[in-house]
Amino acid sequence: MYVVVNAAVSADGKLSSRRRDQLAISGDEDFARVDRLRADSDAVVVGVGTVLADDPHLTVKDEQLRDRRRENGRSANPARVVVDSNGRTPMDAAILDDAATTYVCLSENAPVERRADLADRAQLLTAGDDRVDLLGAFATLQEQGLEQIMVEGGGELIFSLFEAGLVDELRTFVGPKIVGGRDAPTLADGEGFVAEFPMLELEEFDRLDGGVLLTWCVEGR
Amino acid sequence: MYVVVNAAVSADGKLSSRRRDQLAISGDEDFARVDRLRADSDAVVVGVGTVLADDPHLTVKDEQLRDRRRENGRSANPARVVVDSNGRTPMDAAILDDAATTYVCLSENAPVERRADLADRAQLLTAGDDRVDLLGAFATLQEQGLEQIMVEGGGELIFSLFEAGLVDELRTFVGPKIVGGRDAPTLADGEGFVAEFPMLELEEFDRLDGGVLLTWCVEGR
Repeated sequence: MYVVVNAAVSADGKLSSRRRDQLAISGDEDFARVDRLRADSDAVVVGVGTVLADDPHLTVKDEQLRDRRRENGRSANPARVVVDSNGRTPMDAAILDDAATTYVCLSENAPVERRADLADRAQLLTAGDDRVDLLGAFATLQEQGLEQIMVEGGGELIFSLFEAGLVDELRTFVGPKIVGGRDAPTLADGEGFVAEFPMLELEEFDRLDGGVLLTWCVEGR
Repeated sequence: MYVVVNAAVSADGKLSSRRRDQLAISGDEDFARVDRLRADSDAVVVGVGTVLADDPHLTVKDEQLRDRRRENGRSANPARVVVDSNGRTPMDAAILDDAATTYVCLSENAPVERRADLADRAQLLTAGDDRVDLLGAFATLQEQGLEQIMVEGGGELIFSLFEAGLVDELRTFVGPKIVGGRDAPTLADGEGFVAEFPMLELEEFDRLDGGVLLTWCVEGR
């Protein structure tokens, strides 16, 4: 399994404003890049906070890319995965439509009635007591044949994945905007590290859409 | 007056961990770059939070750079400026020593006894009722002949300077480390923008110390 975290951040490291409105940080070139990365992935993963804030569809937008996947004997779209400890994904969430297979990763804590609802629209995985055990959940995803994984946020999930040692590569588009805000979500939120910080190696950097795309590999992976 | 904000951030946009310990984000090449930038400046500005957390000296470390300043008829070190609405700068702060002229920018709210103490070691400027009025304070600094200004943090001051429209240029060293933490300080904290985000133009980007140095100009300046 190879896990790539991809995110667009402002020049001051924010995913969105303190209101969690979706922000245009990147532009057409970066959208096309993200679409290609999705098309190259077996699964696209988000946290439930991102589902609640943005209601993303997480499908491949370019028809040619979908056609190419089909020609290679794959589904048109990668699988979609929500990490959702308490089963809060709404029944009308875009990721629960029939455009792709969807997995909802729950903890034991998720209410039974929510499980029953979600089971109509998604494959349910349970790992962990109060919070999703990411190592367990990702091992189960791998057993389903999902090897090339793209993570699209948010900051809570991304931190937890770094904490679990699951991230192989980080791609950040740093855009030409200041968002500010001590309560605005950042690329890696959660508790934060105070020692043994994950270290990166800069693989590539390129100008894109008025900003810069940084490709980092995680050391020791 | 020309205001350059300079900061080293982790790959996820943090200035330090949630404990506000000083972190080694950059290395020798970046330290040398920061020292040259200080030597090119008339004043180096920080917020009082940075004084309380890090107790920086804010002087030029390279003796040759100090000598060159003297040869050009300047003081060995740039002036040091603390933005300190309530006069919280400790009397034993490194920036209050005699290595350079120090300005403490206060609001009307700063207690009289703190003013009396600080006046022994620094030039006091007062602007604003409860919080330092940055436009007024920077106008006064300019009247003192301080034209080339370098701001070294923290995130609260940097946000306020963007809010006041005072920033001309932003230089961020993005280092190869993940810090994480929803409570860790970022490059621009404060309330944050929710509209009319300051827009930047990417001037330069260069590999440095295992990370990347991004030089942004603020649009409309």
